[in-house]
Amino acid sequence: MPIRSCYNLPVKVCELGEFGLIDLLAGAVAESGGRASGQRVVLGIGDDAAAWKGEAHLELATTDTLVEGVHFTQDIGWYELGWKSLAANLSDIAAMGGVARYALVSLALPDHTEVDQVVDMYRGMARLAQEFEVAIVGGDTVSSPVVVINIAVMGSAVASQAILRRSAARSGDLVAVTGYLGSAAGGLEVLRRGLHLDYETGFFLRQAHFLPRPRLAEGQALVGRGVRAAIDISDGLVADLGQIAKASQVGARLWVDKVPLHPLLKQAFKEEALGLALSGGEDYELLFTAPEPVIAEVEGALSCPVTVVGDIIEGKAGQVELLDARGRSFPWQGRGWEHFAPA
Amino acid sequence: MPIRSCYNLPVKVCELGEFGLIDLLAGAVAESGGRASGQRVVLGIGDDAAAWKGEAHLELATTDTLVEGVHFTQDIGWYELGWKSLAANLSDIAAMGGVARYALVSLALPDHTEVDQVVDMYRGMARLAQEFEVAIVGGDTVSSPVVVINIAVMGSAVASQAILRRSAARSGDLVAVTGYLGSAAGGLEVLRRGLHLDYETGFFLRQAHFLPRPRLAEGQALVGRGVRAAIDISDGLVADLGQIAKASQVGARLWVDKVPLHPLLKQAFKEEALGLALSGGEDYELLFTAPEPVIAEVEGALSCPVTVVGDIIEGKAGQVELLDARGRSFPWQGRGWEHFAPA
Repeated sequence: MPIRSCYNLPVKVCELGEFGLIDLLAGAVAESGGRASGQRVVLGIGDDAAAWKGEAHLELATTDTLVEGVHFTQDIGWYELGWKSLAANLSDIAAMGGVARYALVSLALPDHTEVDQVVDMYRGMARLAQEFEVAIVGGDTVSSPVVVINIAVMGSAVASQAILRRSAARSGDLVAVTGYLGSAAGGLEVLRRGLHLDYETGFFLRQAHFLPRPRLAEGQALVGRGVRAAIDISDGLVADLGQIAKASQVGARLWVDKVPLHPLLKQAFKEEALGLALSGGEDYELLFTAPEPVIAEVEGALSCPVTVVGDIIEGKAGQVELLDARGRSFPWQGRGWEHFAPA
Repeated sequence: MPIRSCYNLPVKVCELGEFGLIDLLAGAVAESGGRASGQRVVLGIGDDAAAWKGEAHLELATTDTLVEGVHFTQDIGWYELGWKSLAANLSDIAAMGGVARYALVSLALPDHTEVDQVVDMYRGMARLAQEFEVAIVGGDTVSSPVVVINIAVMGSAVASQAILRRSAARSGDLVAVTGYLGSAAGGLEVLRRGLHLDYETGFFLRQAHFLPRPRLAEGQALVGRGVRAAIDISDGLVADLGQIAKASQVGARLWVDKVPLHPLLKQAFKEEALGLALSGGEDYELLFTAPEPVIAEVEGALSCPVTVVGDIIEGKAGQVELLDARGRSFPWQGRGWEHFAPA
């Protein structure tokens, strides 16, 4: 039920105050966590810090910040904004092959923000948190001229203590990705250009852009089957492959004709689809490298598509070479997303 | 040495780019952590998430956000801004009686921010981190119309698994504070009013405002001596005592003549000093409650002043009654800091 003032007007956060807002949001996330993480929480929202029973495992932590006008615009609904903010962080834990357990949510909000909107955002977050058994245990709420959402997620490695690193790619490894690429960027283009597509296509692309699903189970399956190098595709396939190659001090080749494109993306964007896949960010699929026998085993073990898209070679650290179906150099000027990018 | 372009102009973050900036900042924090936390770090800045060897203790996590124009203005230097941002988080861990271990730092910065300024901010942070053996293990750097700094700090309870909670105050407890109150608010007033004070006073008050020292050792000493209820004074004495009383479902009495004021604050602000202590925030001292024998033991054990300023009573949950030296109600309309506060 929307939160209304006695005049039936939407209530603004400046009317409720910081502490009233915190009480309200604590209620909205009470259902997050599920059994696995929830039962270990000793102190959630409302004290100076959150507290939970530790494990002797390898601990993981990651954080992401989303700024209004930079990472999102008014086009996105508040529910989707909450979902997507948390999904970006869970995806970072997925890229480590870890289990996500606890989240801190910090909101910087203009005074005129409607309380209903904030609650909707928390609902989106709590829905995803519940699905992946992540407990939202605390955070911070401050006023600000623009909306800034920061989430920190803590987790742990699976029992073996093994994790997926960006720096573990080795010459001779194959490069593979989960799922399909470019769909999130396609969804963004649909909005930007105001494209009218058939219902199924529009729904699929918007879903990919607004409600991405982090590949946590897949990351854990990868680490369990011996994969050691991975990154999540948040800045674009070429850029993120470059990150792995740079961190591992190797080069990489990308076979562009192998890049997996969803049929609905190809149908909607034709020749543009490949470009969206190469440099479009926010797919939150996993990119990983491993020797061929490991990749073969992984292909059968994951419930999502796994596609080999290239290989790792000796070469200039961080350099990604794009090749077409005949092995010729594929001309490509696109790049991934970088903040403060020099013109 | 300042970072300059080939024309000897300050370099802006938009010239360096996100990844260049991250590399630079990774260098600036390389010295943080010290032995205790540093040796347990498995992955620091540069992967999808930070990783460290966990402990079977109770884990703690907290986060704080500072927004330009709301929490700070251009008056503060970048070094001090970095220090203070981290100090606020460490203080939250101190208020749990815990040990701070790892920090994630998220920066949202306008494109025109000078790289030197960002490096200075990191130096301030790294200096404090080093002193308290906190390892800065990761973060996020994004562009934004205003500066927003978010820090998340992870730590753990000392071996006993005991922590200080807001909800553990009991009727009959005495209320005590560490150090002196109002000095940080005094420093802010010096700036706001452009006051000219003697060197010693000006230095002391500015230091209190810009470079607060979190009471980590003191928090650990409190928990070790049986204290169970505490909060750090970030919103003001009256407001934060109210928070403890609310969380513990009790009332509290505050004896205003007992509130510890530093001689230099009194000298500079005369009758105004008490008001600064009652409602001025950001002192980052600890406020705690315990039965009288526990307080007596604590007084001898801490290296900083400990002052009993009130007691906990049955009564309306969260209500704080202010009493003067003769036990009469002390009229006080001031309040602590609350974001989105209703007018």
